[in-house]
Amino acid sequence: MELWFTEEWVPGLKLSVQVKNVVHKEKTKFQELAVYDTETLGRILVLDDVIQTTEIDEHLYHECLVHVPMMSHPNPEEVLIIGGGDGGSLREVLKHKTVKRATLVDIDEGVVEASKKFLPQWNTGFSDPRARVIIANGLDFVAQAKEEYDVIIVDSTDPIGPGEALFREEFYESIKKALRPGGMMAAQTENPVLMPDLVRTIFGRVKKVFPVAKLYTGPMPTYPGGFWSYTCGSLGPDPGEPVRDAGDISFRYYSPEIHRRAFVLGPEVAKNVYGG
Amino acid sequence: MELWFTEEWVPGLKLSVQVKNVVHKEKTKFQELAVYDTETLGRILVLDDVIQTTEIDEHLYHECLVHVPMMSHPNPEEVLIIGGGDGGSLREVLKHKTVKRATLVDIDEGVVEASKKFLPQWNTGFSDPRARVIIANGLDFVAQAKEEYDVIIVDSTDPIGPGEALFREEFYESIKKALRPGGMMAAQTENPVLMPDLVRTIFGRVKKVFPVAKLYTGPMPTYPGGFWSYTCGSLGPDPGEPVRDAGDISFRYYSPEIHRRAFVLGPEVAKNVYGG
Repeated sequence: MELWFTEEWVPGLKLSVQVKNVVHKEKTKFQELAVYDTETLGRILVLDDVIQTTEIDEHLYHECLVHVPMMSHPNPEEVLIIGGGDGGSLREVLKHKTVKRATLVDIDEGVVEASKKFLPQWNTGFSDPRARVIIANGLDFVAQAKEEYDVIIVDSTDPIGPGEALFREEFYESIKKALRPGGMMAAQTENPVLMPDLVRTIFGRVKKVFPVAKLYTGPMPTYPGGFWSYTCGSLGPDPGEPVRDAGDISFRYYSPEIHRRAFVLGPEVAKNVYGG
Repeated sequence: MELWFTEEWVPGLKLSVQVKNVVHKEKTKFQELAVYDTETLGRILVLDDVIQTTEIDEHLYHECLVHVPMMSHPNPEEVLIIGGGDGGSLREVLKHKTVKRATLVDIDEGVVEASKKFLPQWNTGFSDPRARVIIANGLDFVAQAKEEYDVIIVDSTDPIGPGEALFREEFYESIKKALRPGGMMAAQTENPVLMPDLVRTIFGRVKKVFPVAKLYTGPMPTYPGGFWSYTCGSLGPDPGEPVRDAGDISFRYYSPEIHRRAFVLGPEVAKNVYGG
């Protein structure tokens, strides 16, 4: 018998992946969680029937989301990750030797625990002494912080279900207040070709709150349409320009040239978010 | 009743799109051809159960494939398109005022005729007096040409079925001979993340034949993995550098910055094709 997992990317468009083995399934306090082994994508984590991360391409997503803000900031010491319970963003943040503490706040303890048990490629950061994991509502957590972080990374699910609050303007306002002077945030902000209205709306909120807002993109095969956008909001530094030496970090996708290239948008996408 | 078209991207991974209306279906001399209307992707052309081109993202593919070689060549007057019977590449080539003649050679008259009848977004070049359409085997056609073209564009199907011959080293040898001094070719060369071995193999053949060979990439949501590679072989000009003014061409995805950006590869993809 063939076992397939199917995800609705957008109404009328679905991705299906053949499953070799169901590694784990549970109903957490917030969502349905599944870990599958597949031939094509390797091990994958699925939340509420949406692929969150796969062995084959998670590096593309996490390196884009994390290293762009981290490399644009002159000295990121205190870093906050909202969401990202799988640990992939935490792993990437901790590669930077400037980091003194990386705080991961995920609402769903089930995701963190599942990663610790079943996602060895992702979970290596949890045991780092600089890592702090807090199970809490990210919206509330950030609202209580004041000038504490150099970089904040929003590694959320899609803007439906538990992730919805992490795309609100009030959340970006709280992030701005939680950033130290010269700080910056980056968030995953969906597919700019398949979901242009959504991307424009989210970007508009970030732009309203931050003095500097820029959209960048990268390939991401297992997310809808294989092409993903990220939005930076900055209190000072230009997110488009890497300013530090990466030292001995070994990147799979990121490079200073990829960093700069990521901010070059085609005329249609550029017009959609920047107007003109 | 819901009607869905499903394509196997790679073994164990499938894309499905809901079909509103079957516009046309036929068995041509070479392949099964279907034109569907869909809500999500607009009108789509399918050959042998593989999506060739869709209304929503064909501009990404055709602008990458065509304008990169066209803008890197100082004066492309004679242009040859192998494949591309849908007309999208022809339409883009003819936007360049330098072009005196654009010759399209497709093996399958059925595709050209279907485009003329059912693909208004793609077929506008066929009526241009500079366009010449030849129904012939591309491999044979190119083998007989000598120093006739400034730019040759290989707009093939995948390297299985009728398209297989258009990925052979002997074909690239013929292309080289068919190019005028300083000429260049560009070909679609599949997904560098999902099919690294295939991309390396194809690139290796182009590199063996041409003094200059470079890989570039772009987003392409409805092709496997949403991220696509193209390979340029050049007898002189650097394919990575646009050298002409585009005049009044209105691009949807292409820009000189997108052109340069397209050649910036992540370390893993770069190593896969360039070694090191």
